[in-house]
Amino acid sequence: MRKNELDTFLIHSKHIGKLSIKPVMKVNTRAMLSAIYTPQVGKICMAIKDNPENIRKYAIAGKMVAVISNGTAVLGFGNIGARAALPVMEGKAVIFKEFAGVDAFPLCIDENDPDKFVEIVKAASINFAAINLEDIAAPNCFYIEQRLQNELDIPVMHDDQHGTAIVVLAALKGAIRLTGKKDIRIVIVGSGAAGSAITKLLVFANSIEKNLFTDIKILDSKGVVSSDRKDIDQYKKELASLTGQKKAMPLSEAIKGADIFIGVSVKGLLTPELIKSMNKNPIIFAMANPEPEIMPDLAKKAGAYIIATGRSDFPNQINNALAYPGVFKGLLKKGIKKVTPQIKYNVAKAIFEYNKSRLSRSHLLPSIMDKSILDVIVKAI
Amino acid sequence: MRKNELDTFLIHSKHIGKLSIKPVMKVNTRAMLSAIYTPQVGKICMAIKDNPENIRKYAIAGKMVAVISNGTAVLGFGNIGARAALPVMEGKAVIFKEFAGVDAFPLCIDENDPDKFVEIVKAASINFAAINLEDIAAPNCFYIEQRLQNELDIPVMHDDQHGTAIVVLAALKGAIRLTGKKDIRIVIVGSGAAGSAITKLLVFANSIEKNLFTDIKILDSKGVVSSDRKDIDQYKKELASLTGQKKAMPLSEAIKGADIFIGVSVKGLLTPELIKSMNKNPIIFAMANPEPEIMPDLAKKAGAYIIATGRSDFPNQINNALAYPGVFKGLLKKGIKKVTPQIKYNVAKAIFEYNKSRLSRSHLLPSIMDKSILDVIVKAI
Repeated sequence: MRKNELDTFLIHSKHIGKLSIKPVMKVNTRAMLSAIYTPQVGKICMAIKDNPENIRKYAIAGKMVAVISNGTAVLGFGNIGARAALPVMEGKAVIFKEFAGVDAFPLCIDENDPDKFVEIVKAASINFAAINLEDIAAPNCFYIEQRLQNELDIPVMHDDQHGTAIVVLAALKGAIRLTGKKDIRIVIVGSGAAGSAITKLLVFANSIEKNLFTDIKILDSKGVVSSDRKDIDQYKKELASLTGQKKAMPLSEAIKGADIFIGVSVKGLLTPELIKSMNKNPIIFAMANPEPEIMPDLAKKAGAYIIATGRSDFPNQINNALAYPGVFKGLLKKGIKKVTPQIKYNVAKAIFEYNKSRLSRSHLLPSIMDKSILDVIVKAI
Repeated sequence: MRKNELDTFLIHSKHIGKLSIKPVMKVNTRAMLSAIYTPQVGKICMAIKDNPENIRKYAIAGKMVAVISNGTAVLGFGNIGARAALPVMEGKAVIFKEFAGVDAFPLCIDENDPDKFVEIVKAASINFAAINLEDIAAPNCFYIEQRLQNELDIPVMHDDQHGTAIVVLAALKGAIRLTGKKDIRIVIVGSGAAGSAITKLLVFANSIEKNLFTDIKILDSKGVVSSDRKDIDQYKKELASLTGQKKAMPLSEAIKGADIFIGVSVKGLLTPELIKSMNKNPIIFAMANPEPEIMPDLAKKAGAYIIATGRSDFPNQINNALAYPGVFKGLLKKGIKKVTPQIKYNVAKAIFEYNKSRLSRSHLLPSIMDKSILDVIVKAI
């Protein structure tokens, strides 16, 4: 273990996992037993049978969030399977409760076929008030989220996409304010769940703020996602169209003169030389997990004005845990069934505004441990 | 509401359902956040990826029981659907925690096709240490339980079958002891999940104790399930063979001279006249829910020596809640993967023995509220 680290194996084994179930009442009289179980529970069953919406009033389906994954894109590890993903989903459920008072339960589904996965989630969805999809690989994650959003009457959000995009937009607005940059050119590397959603939300934000940036490029491992490429799927075609990029080019060319680098790709991808080819005072979000595209000290030496990562052991941690507890709490509280781009934009803006008075190069975002961010987000929804 | 009844609607709506999630640790430092979530949780993921059995050590899959139903046979209501069944499954989860300290989570699955249901449960099973199937209609419940037991490496028990059978056997042993009856003839009415499992467990018990009974008949709505009938499925053929019944006959004939009536059928099925046709000092278990086959006062007036029902508002409540918390606790504690007839017999015998000193015609079983029954059951497994 590193200095200041807790023993994660001990913490995970002491109570077998990280969650326990707590009934909301004590059952120490026969009257209470009759009220929560047979015979009186039958009245509740009938109330739901007569009006299915009553399930939101009398059963956990009115408050419980499902944290659902198939384990195909876990942390920086990739497809490690549904079993190995369970500790992450439990961790998210812990954060839901500890940070937002939201009850959440992890459900890892051992099924990689996207249609079968959707059918399973739909059949199990009746127990839940909302679904947080997690760690599902692109492009299936887009298809799965879309189908579930269309076919279920509860909010469904793939947090790797939208939670990440919200926090990136909030941090980006902070960084732009600090540098006073204009005519900004953005390069996003990584066209999976996160990169794709970041691109879409930034484009949406630009349609509202008009002058957030003047050029945005998203790159996959082959270079800029552009309309002249023949090797891209429908999802990337949409990105090429949204960003208006018509000409394929490698990262080394795309990054020249850029103001902002957003990496959701792989460790070590960003070299000091590439940073040096950017516009002055470059902003670097190197968010590959657990090892960033470039280490902060190296990036600074190469001229980065602001550097952020996904890690808690450096300043400027960009982590969706800042957003998702509040987002789901707000959705549930306000009975909202769909997470629109406008909602995501509003939340990002609210996080940015909340942090304005403390904004600095090493404090782009509020701390994840700052629990008052919750109300800020809930209000913004 | 009746006298002494609590307001079940208020209890169910106050906290939206009956369960909440409780993390086993406080997350109030960055070090704890790192230990339970990124980056340290990655070590736990990798430990599970390298050895899938580690999921039982470090994740809730080592302790959490799933209470699973499709809502096709709920209480006395029949097929009211998966949504309307959720309050019952939540109630069972409450009882698991309150009575046995076992963490359990309800999962109602909106799928009636037995093969699809099995596939969904299998895909979701990786989050759990054991499965309590509940309120699934016969004959699908037999097929579903069998497949899951064969195809999963965790214990799977359909409680309507085996929990009920255990408690009935315990009560029956008490009743026989009180009456001193010999050469006992038993009539079981209802050949669904409960009736079928009761028959099988009684036949098993008779193979051990030899002289528990001399004749046992199980009846469906057409009469005695017997080998000369052409209208019975494979499951009933097995019952005919187990009970050695070769000749079909109606209840009115089957019950003549019988010592014990066990009803898991419908309200009002047992008339005073039928009781009067039984052997002297008849034992009546009228367990139809929520209205028994005959009301206790009427049964007594007709000559019943002992009367038991499924209800908490009469003496001698026969309810599987007496058994299942301890059964699952014992299975988990001892790492047992399969609930054998011998285990069920041992548990029933232990409940009977525990109650011996207090045994009376109105106290066939320990109270459901008696929490020391838990250790008795765990020890018996």
